[in-house]
Amino acid sequence: MVTRLSNFFLRTLREDPAGAEVASHRLLIRAGYIRPQAAGIFAWLPLGLRVKAKIETVIREEMAAAGAQEVHFPALMPREAYEATGRWDEYGDLLFRLQDRKGGDYLLAPTHEEAFTMLVKDLYSSYKDLPLTIFQIQDKYRDEARPRAGLLRGREFTMKDAYSFDSSDAGLDASYQAQRDAYERIFQRLGLEYAIVQADAGAMGGSRSEEFLHPTPVGEDTFVRSAGGYAANVEAFTTAVPDAIPFDADAAPVIFDSPNTPTIDTLVAHCNANLDGEFTAADTLKNVVLALTHLDGTRELVVVGIPGDREVDEKRAEVAFAPAEVETATADDFEKNPLLVKGYIGPWSPTGAILGEESATGIRYLVDPRVSEGTSWITGANMDQKHAHSVVAGRDFAADGIVEIANVREGDPAPDGSGPVELARGMEIGHVFQLGRKYAEALGLKVLDENGKLVTVTMGSYGIGVTRILAIIAELNNDDKGLIWPASVAPFDVQVVAAGRDQVAFDVAADISAQLESAGLDVLYDDRPKVSPGVKFGDAELVGVPKIVIVGRGAADGQVELWDRSTGERDAISVADAIARLAQR
Amino acid sequence: MVTRLSNFFLRTLREDPAGAEVASHRLLIRAGYIRPQAAGIFAWLPLGLRVKAKIETVIREEMAAAGAQEVHFPALMPREAYEATGRWDEYGDLLFRLQDRKGGDYLLAPTHEEAFTMLVKDLYSSYKDLPLTIFQIQDKYRDEARPRAGLLRGREFTMKDAYSFDSSDAGLDASYQAQRDAYERIFQRLGLEYAIVQADAGAMGGSRSEEFLHPTPVGEDTFVRSAGGYAANVEAFTTAVPDAIPFDADAAPVIFDSPNTPTIDTLVAHCNANLDGEFTAADTLKNVVLALTHLDGTRELVVVGIPGDREVDEKRAEVAFAPAEVETATADDFEKNPLLVKGYIGPWSPTGAILGEESATGIRYLVDPRVSEGTSWITGANMDQKHAHSVVAGRDFAADGIVEIANVREGDPAPDGSGPVELARGMEIGHVFQLGRKYAEALGLKVLDENGKLVTVTMGSYGIGVTRILAIIAELNNDDKGLIWPASVAPFDVQVVAAGRDQVAFDVAADISAQLESAGLDVLYDDRPKVSPGVKFGDAELVGVPKIVIVGRGAADGQVELWDRSTGERDAISVADAIARLAQR
Repeated sequence: MVTRLSNFFLRTLREDPAGAEVASHRLLIRAGYIRPQAAGIFAWLPLGLRVKAKIETVIREEMAAAGAQEVHFPALMPREAYEATGRWDEYGDLLFRLQDRKGGDYLLAPTHEEAFTMLVKDLYSSYKDLPLTIFQIQDKYRDEARPRAGLLRGREFTMKDAYSFDSSDAGLDASYQAQRDAYERIFQRLGLEYAIVQADAGAMGGSRSEEFLHPTPVGEDTFVRSAGGYAANVEAFTTAVPDAIPFDADAAPVIFDSPNTPTIDTLVAHCNANLDGEFTAADTLKNVVLALTHLDGTRELVVVGIPGDREVDEKRAEVAFAPAEVETATADDFEKNPLLVKGYIGPWSPTGAILGEESATGIRYLVDPRVSEGTSWITGANMDQKHAHSVVAGRDFAADGIVEIANVREGDPAPDGSGPVELARGMEIGHVFQLGRKYAEALGLKVLDENGKLVTVTMGSYGIGVTRILAIIAELNNDDKGLIWPASVAPFDVQVVAAGRDQVAFDVAADISAQLESAGLDVLYDDRPKVSPGVKFGDAELVGVPKIVIVGRGAADGQVELWDRSTGERDAISVADAIARLAQR
Repeated sequence: MVTRLSNFFLRTLREDPAGAEVASHRLLIRAGYIRPQAAGIFAWLPLGLRVKAKIETVIREEMAAAGAQEVHFPALMPREAYEATGRWDEYGDLLFRLQDRKGGDYLLAPTHEEAFTMLVKDLYSSYKDLPLTIFQIQDKYRDEARPRAGLLRGREFTMKDAYSFDSSDAGLDASYQAQRDAYERIFQRLGLEYAIVQADAGAMGGSRSEEFLHPTPVGEDTFVRSAGGYAANVEAFTTAVPDAIPFDADAAPVIFDSPNTPTIDTLVAHCNANLDGEFTAADTLKNVVLALTHLDGTRELVVVGIPGDREVDEKRAEVAFAPAEVETATADDFEKNPLLVKGYIGPWSPTGAILGEESATGIRYLVDPRVSEGTSWITGANMDQKHAHSVVAGRDFAADGIVEIANVREGDPAPDGSGPVELARGMEIGHVFQLGRKYAEALGLKVLDENGKLVTVTMGSYGIGVTRILAIIAELNNDDKGLIWPASVAPFDVQVVAAGRDQVAFDVAADISAQLESAGLDVLYDDRPKVSPGVKFGDAELVGVPKIVIVGRGAADGQVELWDRSTGERDAISVADAIARLAQR
């Protein structure tokens, strides 16, 4: 089809929109793909809808190839099922909640696990009905605290969300693999390089969980990978637990005065000046006091011992303590707990057993996996201006549990033994994970098995952010002039620009457009009569159709220029050659 | 493509769902097209999505043919623009309202006039940019007081809404006509008979307004039509105003005692017994007291004089007084206004001039168009147990205005002189109307005209309820066994049923399915291995694919039955003939 720019609903903008910090946000607005309606909420203009439809088509085709069937849920859902799974509350402020005229509680669904679970429960009852994978492409809502970066983190966004239902774990594995394979094909077709990294299932519950990340230095997510093939996002990285070290059960820790050493740096300097030996931060045990806010609103202090050369990684701490919220303990927390001697906190006290014995303080003491049995540490003595050395884990203190909140560093060993990891950055483009029986249990989804016994169904959940992917493709494919779409998702296959002043350029351009249409191409024809070639070229570069035919002075002689938006090359060739080359694709 | 029923996400139900009163609601749920999620809110199953997609494709094709371009707005919209046009309040309880985490007011849009207006204002500035018609196919929300009849009146529904923008009235007429023509083509393609009737623009404001109604005795809307081509819904019907009649200016009305005649019937009986002549209800003037509640919450009483042989039509009264709400005056209203003598109210009083003079009562007196200058009436005397005759409009009383609240009757003259009207019933399937400058004025949408002067844009609005149409098609095409889809929107072109007990039936059925697929047909193949032919036939009838191939006992001999779901005819023919006949369509 030929779309004529003279009456196409498009107005490109010269100025960058206010507050648009990332290229995709800026360019999608300037080039007339989207228009902001409210923070994180956009309208789609004809150009944007075309790209979105192309992405959706790729996804639909690969979902069908993977045996997934399409359904569609409303955005507006009643509270009940979300209440049953606890997510009505867990989502906190992220959820748009509302009431109908009768006072019934509703939400704008951020995801639809509950609805899919209830649907299958409504209709299916036997293991023979399974496996089943159903999906939708649907607009979702999350009331983000800081919607930003345009479509990358919006409050309304289009997602493909698929859910698999199986009566056995082996079945779930197969359904999971089918979706995972489909995702690989989708990203390959969209020209999106990806790494598959282990992820934490987080607030969704469940077991196996992998993210598809597009590796890019400007990515918002950090992940780690080893040369041996291990890859995980930092939240999911697990520290290899060292073997236990034999220790001298009779020896005892030594308390020493350490005036003015409330930080690791000052402590290490003090030790090097006053103790035998050379010490680094890695020899010290740093005890961090964190405050957790649980779902029921209660606040709990915990102390976590991590090697002194590590910092707390906020994201890892979030995941480790989810669904509780984590923050650093406040001055007020310390005031209320005078036994916590700031700057001199230790895991134990020879004089009073403050920590490590819950009965004494009521505060849980947790440790990093590296604080394993037999390791010896310099650490606080729980007395002002005093530390202790030769404090041995498993002898002088015992933790209430292990927790992964320390940061991951380049060179840390991959947990699967595949060598040291490096850190990389990426953007999430997809997520597959095994929900297991969490939702089916909460909502009572059971089927009869081969023996006529009721078994709880096991589920998987598979998401791709359609509008997010569109933005990522735009983010990865642009220059200072505008967008440069890959052919697979470009709004048009080719743009024909009538760039001459004479009627002949317009006649030839119209003819070329018609011929390209006959060859099955989607053509945008810039037929605007009184717009200068310079403005037309600028608009073409901004809009980013990958192939451009310039019909200018040479038109009368059957010559045009074929312009590759990506390389910038312009070839002067005959009309016939131009059409032949474009028709090949 | 061949879809195999053995793993298709479908479960037909034997029982009618509770509370489903209309056939489309009952059958779409039983046959596995939709599932209720909450009152008036449904999920779409694979079968339903297929039919919906076919309807949307027809609409998209005809919109493109009419030059309309597709955009897409979010359902969640900020309050501001709806506040500027007054609709934030006007919509009352119909609007789903909510707040985001920062306390900002939002709504789930019931229609998007404001958003489209603002979009064009954002991007366009010159008459040269116009005309423009843009549309979306989008999910809308209305918090109906009584969601009912399944998809016919839901709280979430899919609509195609288009809006045209022109700089002149002539332009609007042309844009309106283009959409009106497109609607005719759409309904023709969908096999939906329609009448185009004049409608009242109602709360939307504006001028020309027409509804597409599907005429059916079970329709919820009443409309009138004349043999001469006039058609209007009852709300829009206008009464021909009679010419003024000369009257004797010196004569005076005559008051008479009329004990116990508070109703028209008792009054007519009294007159026939006590006055000279033969009287009917048409000779009397009935004065109805109504209470209006205005948008600002104030309550106003009005008295309306209508011929005594007419009743108040609630819908016409609603439209006549919109946006105020209308109800019959209460006993309390009469108590507070002792000058209104119930049962004996007249337009005027010779003794005290109660009505007809606003100063006396503060109550407006309005009349039906038939109460025109020179008409003479028997009516109340505004005194208990007294009426008056020879009361002449324009001589003895003057109305504050004319209002159309009286019911329309078969035989009433069409206002265009095309003869008497008959009453008919129909279902609304589309609506086109000229908004005029209401929204453009409220939101400041102006463009520069040929002379460089700013002119306010004039708009049209064009809506089709996609999910409503789907339900109407289902409502019109079913029998006691199930649905019977017209070919243009059927979820599949043909259903192949393996109805034999032997493997050969399945082999032949699979082969036929593959051949039909090669011929370009969408095939649903019932390959369920252990389901009896009877159950399969029942499911086929319920699901309603228009053509069915039964592969049974004759399969081994190359014989099948071709079953027409609509006529019920079954033809025993050869496999080759069956394929040939189906491939022709």
